[in-house]
Amino acid sequence: MPGTRFKHVAIVAKHQAPTSGPIVEQIRQFLRAQGLKVSLERNNAESADLAGYPVLDAQEIGQQCDLAVVVGGDGTMLGFAREVARYGIPLVGINQGRLGFITDIPADQFREALTPILAGDYETEQRSMLEGAVWRDGQNIFSGLALNDVVVSRGAAAGMVELRIHVGEDFVANVRADGVIVASPTGSTAYALSAGGPLLHPSIAGWVMVPIASHGLSNRPIVLPDRGVVSLEVVAGRDASVNFDMQSLTHVQHGDRVTVQRSQHHAQFLHPTGWSYYATLRRKLRWYEGGS
Amino acid sequence: MPGTRFKHVAIVAKHQAPTSGPIVEQIRQFLRAQGLKVSLERNNAESADLAGYPVLDAQEIGQQCDLAVVVGGDGTMLGFAREVARYGIPLVGINQGRLGFITDIPADQFREALTPILAGDYETEQRSMLEGAVWRDGQNIFSGLALNDVVVSRGAAAGMVELRIHVGEDFVANVRADGVIVASPTGSTAYALSAGGPLLHPSIAGWVMVPIASHGLSNRPIVLPDRGVVSLEVVAGRDASVNFDMQSLTHVQHGDRVTVQRSQHHAQFLHPTGWSYYATLRRKLRWYEGGS
Amino acid sequence: MPGTRFKHVAIVAKHQAPTSGPIVEQIRQFLRAQGLKVSLERNNAESADLAGYPVLDAQEIGQQCDLAVVVGGDGTMLGFAREVARYGIPLVGINQGRLGFITDIPADQFREALTPILAGDYETEQRSMLEGAVWRDGQNIFSGLALNDVVVSRGAAAGMVELRIHVGEDFVANVRADGVIVASPTGSTAYALSAGGPLLHPSIAGWVMVPIASHGLSNRPIVLPDRGVVSLEVVAGRDASVNFDMQSLTHVQHGDRVTVQRSQHHAQFLHPTGWSYYATLRRKLRWYEGGS
Amino acid sequence: MPGTRFKHVAIVAKHQAPTSGPIVEQIRQFLRAQGLKVSLERNNAESADLAGYPVLDAQEIGQQCDLAVVVGGDGTMLGFAREVARYGIPLVGINQGRLGFITDIPADQFREALTPILAGDYETEQRSMLEGAVWRDGQNIFSGLALNDVVVSRGAAAGMVELRIHVGEDFVANVRADGVIVASPTGSTAYALSAGGPLLHPSIAGWVMVPIASHGLSNRPIVLPDRGVVSLEVVAGRDASVNFDMQSLTHVQHGDRVTVQRSQHHAQFLHPTGWSYYATLRRKLRWYEGGS
Repeated sequence: MPGTRFKHVAIVAKHQAPTSGPIVEQIRQFLRAQGLKVSLERNNAESADLAGYPVLDAQEIGQQCDLAVVVGGDGTMLGFAREVARYGIPLVGINQGRLGFITDIPADQFREALTPILAGDYETEQRSMLEGAVWRDGQNIFSGLALNDVVVSRGAAAGMVELRIHVGEDFVANVRADGVIVASPTGSTAYALSAGGPLLHPSIAGWVMVPIASHGLSNRPIVLPDRGVVSLEVVAGRDASVNFDMQSLTHVQHGDRVTVQRSQHHAQFLHPTGWSYYATLRRKLRWYEGGS
Repeated sequence: MPGTRFKHVAIVAKHQAPTSGPIVEQIRQFLRAQGLKVSLERNNAESADLAGYPVLDAQEIGQQCDLAVVVGGDGTMLGFAREVARYGIPLVGINQGRLGFITDIPADQFREALTPILAGDYETEQRSMLEGAVWRDGQNIFSGLALNDVVVSRGAAAGMVELRIHVGEDFVANVRADGVIVASPTGSTAYALSAGGPLLHPSIAGWVMVPIASHGLSNRPIVLPDRGVVSLEVVAGRDASVNFDMQSLTHVQHGDRVTVQRSQHHAQFLHPTGWSYYATLRRKLRWYEGGS
Repeated sequence: MPGTRFKHVAIVAKHQAPTSGPIVEQIRQFLRAQGLKVSLERNNAESADLAGYPVLDAQEIGQQCDLAVVVGGDGTMLGFAREVARYGIPLVGINQGRLGFITDIPADQFREALTPILAGDYETEQRSMLEGAVWRDGQNIFSGLALNDVVVSRGAAAGMVELRIHVGEDFVANVRADGVIVASPTGSTAYALSAGGPLLHPSIAGWVMVPIASHGLSNRPIVLPDRGVVSLEVVAGRDASVNFDMQSLTHVQHGDRVTVQRSQHHAQFLHPTGWSYYATLRRKLRWYEGGS
Repeated sequence: MPGTRFKHVAIVAKHQAPTSGPIVEQIRQFLRAQGLKVSLERNNAESADLAGYPVLDAQEIGQQCDLAVVVGGDGTMLGFAREVARYGIPLVGINQGRLGFITDIPADQFREALTPILAGDYETEQRSMLEGAVWRDGQNIFSGLALNDVVVSRGAAAGMVELRIHVGEDFVANVRADGVIVASPTGSTAYALSAGGPLLHPSIAGWVMVPIASHGLSNRPIVLPDRGVVSLEVVAGRDASVNFDMQSLTHVQHGDRVTVQRSQHHAQFLHPTGWSYYATLRRKLRWYEGGS
């Protein structure tokens, strides 16, 4: 089919979500009817009882497919985006529930939305990713990717953590708080927002560092350049831990250093033409539209 | 000594703080020289190796003494105030380190400060206390007093808690957040401040309810009347817990209700005449005095 | 009609609002049918072309009527409440547009709402009022009542004002900002909210002092007791002015002092039984209900 | 003098600041002793009674000098930086009072600080500038440069303004507030900070848009890319005005559009080696260092 840039499309659905079976099947038939090769992501295939179709795992999708249609909410999308980050495959989000910040195509309109996209008519959005690592006694004891944020925080039964923050060699501040969030522009609408941080347009080449319930009055979020390495050293506080996208949790102890830097990888999301980041803020957050 | 209203004074010091021994001894001698009967609080007596002096536990101090001199920081003061809350004994705070919000007499000036107080020249400050309880299946499974705050919060590895809040029978709001703080005016300079709450003058008959990292934009602290019962029901969130003054922690589960109401007891603090609440805010928080 | 406590009801409508004519006439007929004497407020009678009905001015309404039905939004209600503050007459608000914080009866449901109220089935809400005054060289040059707030602020073309704040004799703080708001609980949902202040339940006996765009980081709203006098002295800043309920504006200059204290008068609002202050917050502000 | 890259240095001092005379003379002699040609800025020369020295106006300094030493605070520096923006001349700030964010060399240490700088040992900091314009009926009625911010705000006696904001063709939001600030990273420590905005590291290629006392709860500052044009159209509000760096004020009316875009010019500040942006935040704002 001339004019179509995509040849092999993967369908990815929320794990353990049996309700996504019918919509996945409809999307599969629609894509097949467009002359595309279609594969299912393995976990989804298993959990949604879609056995019998070609099945790939995330890595194989990254290697073999040139588009992935993700059925689910922002969480599903972010999780899969992390898994295929290194392959640069573009992702489209189809949402069965409330539309998300990234997953902006309602399930009942997937045909109208996917048709122009498959014909090459779409907007591409690159989202930067955070590469985090934990260092103990000079050894890297944990590494991970995050699309939203890296968060160092106190234990539930403990008082504040105290973190000594640097950017490169530059000392930034000593922060005593429940925790500190280093968020990407994508993450600026997630936990960082709850903690009082500003919104960052996705094209901003920076991270926002937001303290959680910071001691005293003299604190304020700061937008840091995403070049160089942000480092957070634990100087006080029991039972502290670090989270990547609020998913994987690692305990950290006094003297441990958490580093955050820009990943060489990006997430790449495709949106229908006319998609507006600002409209998403107004719809999802009622930003400047709430109350009366 | 005519004109003195106090007869039997207890000295209370920070537990496990051997450095307080000499100052406790100086205060003891000073009080004895004023013709007062002096007792030591038991824990302090043991830990500070002050054996040989008359020793009372907190309950006995509440019953037998008419003044307690507390040597330590705000934490020591708040802890002892909770222990003797039911007895109405007035407390004076002497601080060996950085002055606190409540403990405002520097150790090296205790003579100049205590002399007029013992002569009846002082300002009395009543601080309201929170009485908290946890209810499961209609049973009271935990109760406690707090001078600062009652805090319901999420587990370290868990997402947000969702709390359904009532005042009396009135539904207030469903809050999704890291947690919710119900703070007294005393507590408004503690954790509630870090979470973004306003300051409450100690004479305000209210609590401030402050969310911690609340989801979305449509939240704001509210000052509630301290009559009636504030109730926080856990409707979602794993590993949640409730804290009283960030000390005693109790795990709570779905359906548990935490209630907070005004205790019939007060803490009663004596300050040197001329003491100013607002000066304390400016000194401790650099309130309206920080930066340039 | 036995059981009715009201005998003479005034109808007050938004000035210069010709559209309120028909609804005013419907309410008049309804009240007459209940056997009540009905008068119209003079300004409304003139502007809405309702000549021919008994007409009273605000003062006469306060003296002669035992209930006033106010047709309009919160602004109309607050304005009339100030005018009749000294008479203690209860007010009911009927709203033709978006419901307000105080005017909570939709125009098309006025019969269902007023019937039980006239029968004595309602909830009374007392709202405290601020009495403000401006002093120059020891002379009172301006006085006024406010239901929401007293605001001292900078001129449009000028830099910050600096205000020296006291409560009684106690020095509170020197505030450099665009301005300072002293708001009642009623006003805590108005300008003070926009400036970042907390919500105050109407029963709280306090004011909230909120700076507008305060210099530096070390600031925070404070809830002050409504006993005693709050004083704001202008120590720097050109073209400053003071507003009462954002209505009457008076210019103030260096050395002028604005004082705020609790008025001996209250506004008294009647609501249908079951009315909830918290529901109003959730509806009007989407408090804890915005976004997703 | 080989090794020195500078040949002709201008000295600029705060206008109408007679006290700067002696220090200007000391700096002049010091620079002359280094073999440099030295000129004085005209306004300064006149006001400080330094007649007799070579004198240039700002434009001539931009054209003829290769370094300007500015004696004064941040305001003096920002004002001169705007005047010479198009010439790219680097500026060094010497401060007689409290050190500023940009003017970081204490007057009594100017020799120690300038010596290495003149020898080529310094750090260069480029600060982006905002180019603002006001449009009425398609005509440009005002243009200006700003280093800190462009601010559209309400009149002193008027209610809120309502601004319709776009970035390029994208509709961003309708904001009802006292005003809206569009600030550069440099301006993020000025008025935008007071209004609640985040800090932006100077290397961030973005503006922060911060509302002043925004109506309702659903607002939050946003960091926008500095490519493209931010436009603020006045859709409601009397007596509104626009400010550039809080200096030049222009009245705007309904339908007027204020546009803000990145200037092709930069301010270029030289700092002693080892200068730290973060240290400046901690010192000036007590950022994460205030209180206890």
